[in-house]
Amino acid sequence: MESLKNKIMSEGIVLGGDILKVDSFLNHQIDVGFLNEIGKEFKNRFKDVKVDKILTIEASGIAIASITAQYFGNVPVVFAKKSESKNLDSDVYETKVYSFTKDRDYAVKVSKKYLSEGENILILDDFLANGRAAVGLMDIVKQANANVVGLGIVIEKGFQDGGQILRDSGVRLESLAIIDSIADGKLEYRD
Amino acid sequence: MESLKNKIMSEGIVLGGDILKVDSFLNHQIDVGFLNEIGKEFKNRFKDVKVDKILTIEASGIAIASITAQYFGNVPVVFAKKSESKNLDSDVYETKVYSFTKDRDYAVKVSKKYLSEGENILILDDFLANGRAAVGLMDIVKQANANVVGLGIVIEKGFQDGGQILRDSGVRLESLAIIDSIADGKLEYRD
Repeated sequence: MESLKNKIMSEGIVLGGDILKVDSFLNHQIDVGFLNEIGKEFKNRFKDVKVDKILTIEASGIAIASITAQYFGNVPVVFAKKSESKNLDSDVYETKVYSFTKDRDYAVKVSKKYLSEGENILILDDFLANGRAAVGLMDIVKQANANVVGLGIVIEKGFQDGGQILRDSGVRLESLAIIDSIADGKLEYRD
Repeated sequence: MESLKNKIMSEGIVLGGDILKVDSFLNHQIDVGFLNEIGKEFKNRFKDVKVDKILTIEASGIAIASITAQYFGNVPVVFAKKSESKNLDSDVYETKVYSFTKDRDYAVKVSKKYLSEGENILILDDFLANGRAAVGLMDIVKQANANVVGLGIVIEKGFQDGGQILRDSGVRLESLAIIDSIADGKLEYRD
């Protein structure tokens, strides 16, 4: 997605080797007009797929999923929860995900009420690197006996192994930008 | 907002006295079509106000703020962060907020890059009860020498004191539904 590459080029910040920050439009401040472009592009990539519901994970995934849902006929969005909260149902699908950013395992939960057997689920997230969050979300969908019809990622770090692992597993993965290397602050994209 | 009261009546769940769960459309699963109605209503309530940016707090506020921003000319949304993350700038506005739900203080942070002096900020959030989160967000806006032009809340628990404290402080507060009591699972709304 050319406009995404341009956005990353003009606003992205590379830190300490392979960390790319896109806080100005995706992860802290949100450019809602640009997210609409992203939503349209996800619809274009998955236009042949029946989507009953979009699943994402808090926090940055929520804006992407909510804006994108508008291009899929306002299907419901469900966001998996990371933190312990008194208010979450006890009856949940749960999986463990290791976060490299936070250097610890965390529990990811979705109430059983909001994923049903046979539903066609599109998983969306902001970044794909090692793929742990995506694999966790797929595990939750599997526990619900629902179907992962696709996995849509805004920015894939192609130099980490998550994308390869997921493609090898057969899931339909669409990344709007794939970065194959970050060297000296310069990004190389996969064609 | 009549449609919101109807939505709460048909989908809300009252738990343990005064806990109202609206996980089916606001806090876990998101009804994006309905959020568009909420966004339109916020625009209607704040139509005379110049809004440069919308500020909210992760996680549930993100969907509300992002969808609502579309009715304010796609102004940028900034979501305050609760958790410690290696990737957040060190140069932040920070405040402490006590969470009754989680029974602890937590730090709320916004990167200094994304709030600027003189900006007109509309603060949006899902719930208002004791008002601690709203006061924290207002404190962050004040640190940035920006202006809080309004505070928009989807559901206010009018039987807790946050709404009164905020109205007394002079901030323009618009709550789309104000619940004055929850007794025996039945909700009474303020007119």
